Amino acid sequence: MSSTSSTTRTAGRQATADRPSGSASSGATQPAGSTEELEPGVHRTVLTSGLRVVTEQMPGVRSAAIGVWVGVGSRDENAATDTASTHGCSHFLEHLLFKGTSERSALDISVALDAVGGEFNAFTAKEYTCFHARVLDEDLELAVDIIGDMITSSLLTDEDVEAERDVILDEIAMHDDDPDDVVHNLFAAQAWGEDTPLGRGIAGTVESIEALTRDQIEAFYREHYRPENIVISAAGNLAHGTVVALVERAFARNGFLAGVAAPVPPRTGEPLRVAPGEVRATRPFEQVNVVLGMEGLRRDDDRRFALGIVNAALGGGTSSRLFQEVREHRGLAYSVYSFAGAHAESGLVGVAVGCLPSKVEEVLDVVRQELRALAAEGITAEEVARGKGQLRGGLVLGLEDPASRMSRLGKAELVHDELLTIDQVLDRISSVTVEECRDVAAEIFSRPEILAIVGPR
Amino acid sequence: MSSTSSTTRTAGRQATADRPSGSASSGATQPAGSTEELEPGVHRTVLTSGLRVVTEQMPGVRSAAIGVWVGVGSRDENAATDTASTHGCSHFLEHLLFKGTSERSALDISVALDAVGGEFNAFTAKEYTCFHARVLDEDLELAVDIIGDMITSSLLTDEDVEAERDVILDEIAMHDDDPDDVVHNLFAAQAWGEDTPLGRGIAGTVESIEALTRDQIEAFYREHYRPENIVISAAGNLAHGTVVALVERAFARNGFLAGVAAPVPPRTGEPLRVAPGEVRATRPFEQVNVVLGMEGLRRDDDRRFALGIVNAALGGGTSSRLFQEVREHRGLAYSVYSFAGAHAESGLVGVAVGCLPSKVEEVLDVVRQELRALAAEGITAEEVARGKGQLRGGLVLGLEDPASRMSRLGKAELVHDELLTIDQVLDRISSVTVEECRDVAAEIFSRPEILAIVGPR
Repeated sequence: MSSTSSTTRTAGRQATADRPSGSASSGATQPAGSTEELEPGVHRTVLTSGLRVVTEQMPGVRSAAIGVWVGVGSRDENAATDTASTHGCSHFLEHLLFKGTSERSALDISVALDAVGGEFNAFTAKEYTCFHARVLDEDLELAVDIIGDMITSSLLTDEDVEAERDVILDEIAMHDDDPDDVVHNLFAAQAWGEDTPLGRGIAGTVESIEALTRDQIEAFYREHYRPENIVISAAGNLAHGTVVALVERAFARNGFLAGVAAPVPPRTGEPLRVAPGEVRATRPFEQVNVVLGMEGLRRDDDRRFALGIVNAALGGGTSSRLFQEVREHRGLAYSVYSFAGAHAESGLVGVAVGCLPSKVEEVLDVVRQELRALAAEGITAEEVARGKGQLRGGLVLGLEDPASRMSRLGKAELVHDELLTIDQVLDRISSVTVEECRDVAAEIFSRPEILAIVGPR
Repeated sequence: MSSTSSTTRTAGRQATADRPSGSASSGATQPAGSTEELEPGVHRTVLTSGLRVVTEQMPGVRSAAIGVWVGVGSRDENAATDTASTHGCSHFLEHLLFKGTSERSALDISVALDAVGGEFNAFTAKEYTCFHARVLDEDLELAVDIIGDMITSSLLTDEDVEAERDVILDEIAMHDDDPDDVVHNLFAAQAWGEDTPLGRGIAGTVESIEALTRDQIEAFYREHYRPENIVISAAGNLAHGTVVALVERAFARNGFLAGVAAPVPPRTGEPLRVAPGEVRATRPFEQVNVVLGMEGLRRDDDRRFALGIVNAALGGGTSSRLFQEVREHRGLAYSVYSFAGAHAESGLVGVAVGCLPSKVEEVLDVVRQELRALAAEGITAEEVARGKGQLRGGLVLGLEDPASRMSRLGKAELVHDELLTIDQVLDRISSVTVEECRDVAAEIFSRPEILAIVGPR
């Protein structure tokens, strides 16, 4: 539960912040304005303004994907109890950037990319905001120009703020009608505290959205949308130098690139305390939705690859222990899976299940039993081998999609402090041992329980 | 609202049956066992048993997508009022085919494809059932072998029927908690009648699922899972002859291919009457969800390309009239879009909106006003040009994905009676005139209204 998308018809969940992925070397050591090759076909340029451009050339495709990754999200907002709360501001702002610039109206922005059949959207997560497009290669210039205009020159008029406030209030109501959204938000709120930067929901509350002023949003925009806090990633049929030139032109508006700065390094922070405990919310749904988990690993923890394999064995596919036991053998639930998410200072692991109210106790018994077995015995050599195959296959299949490659580069550059090429990631997966899986499972799955339950009564 | 997926963690809607797409020439005129080239890189073989194999070779990819399309869906079931109702049987059976054969347990099936990181799933629609996988090219043989085993040799044990019955009852509860699913099902039920083949929901009802017996399901399996009623489509890094050989081996189990038959031709039928009117369901949601529409076009109607462009202008993107008026200008709703779906005998068009209860009347006013304007004046030359670009761009971007190409071939072969190559589809889109758009809009959007509303009170 880490992002809220903007212009899609139905806002799907995107666990974008939650997956281990390759990452780029810190920009601090590289001369400004210079370009380096990170791996074959992957280039990175740091402009003197601190803006970073990372691209990957993919032979054999006719399209390109581009993403503008801004290092701001709900965790950069003030606590909701504060009198000048900015809770929900990142997401509100993301919506407003589609509403027009001095050059383009909201309609102009929409018309331009609709006319070429491009996909164009944005989402806000706890740690970043991303504007992304996928277009035919010949339309990449158009896409860069429009996104550059939006990022640098949005007007944020009073009228647009008021219309969009209503849209966001409706979006919040929509999420409130989604049991999965509700239970994952409740789980995070219990784990980190509902008034903490990581524990709060991304979209804000009805109260915080009603209270936000145009001036607050504009100040937030000026503070966070700065070149040194932005990574632009692209993948597809493109040449790195051309993309850099397009970016330099599109983002030069409003003197946006005029300053000199070093890129903002990835977030770090002291480990964050996680609060075990149980929390329930009564909703008039047919199903009961449950998330049961515990504290996981922080993002830079080397054991994340072993945890990824343990997670695959626990609830990562239809061959997983949970799918087999909860669904195949007992018929207790249609949807059951496990997850492992990570931020700079804290991570969470958990199991999510939706079931009929009469099955909740048995579901919880089975899940707890599986977690205890995992903590006590780890996973088998066969499960380790299968988990490696699963992660490897998923990674390689994803490489054919320009949007996946674009996301990999953008997130790596923005949130990680180390570059792993795809081959390095594959090597890290391959080198995980049964003992490492056992050790990480023993440590994590014996931690005190966090339980969120949403349903009738 | 035309399909229900099986093994995904959360069952997303897939409007698979509802889009115009290219199609293959009828197999009846082709000698059994022969192969023809339909367009460059696309080959089609009809086996003597009537099983069809259509493949497309894609240079530059390392993966392959395969789909087994069975010409059976909820519309082939008996009415729910019948004493021996088979309502929900297609979808129940689709679930059961994952539960094991004489060669493989359910776990074996899951393990094999999880171990190579493949994506493997299935969905049931009103007109067909599809089992599909995406794998690395070297794993295509494995995928074909497993799906062939499932299709030809599933055991359907009593124990599995009982466990899966509970899973499906939970899945029905999950759909009942999804406002979008509820309102679209209600709209179809109002339009076609809730006890008609097209008007009924795909998953069945609690009552129909509780009543289905193993014998009914097995009889349904034997009746509909026959080679002449099945199309296998594949796209990616593959050779047609190899795929045909893999299919001939994998589907030879149980004497499945032993008979001689001609492929079942695409469904046809007399035009179906659509009943205008209003229907409401009270649910304790935060939002009100509305679908407002009317009778559309049947699948083989040549005006579908013009209607596609009109639909794009009405509510097909963020530049569309509805998105601009309902969301951008008035802030009435986060999600608003239009759709045009078609079956052999009947189609529906409509507008779907989710909004706060206080906004419903204004939303309906605005939507009705836009539909009236469309019927009276059609769309502008600029909108026609933009709609063409939108359809063209979306089509070309989709071609890079093996799964999209596989779906195009499978649906074309199974449900259409004419082959359109991609270039032919692009030509048909390009040749649409402003007048054709005006005429089809005038006819369709002046038809009597069908309205479904789901929400509180």
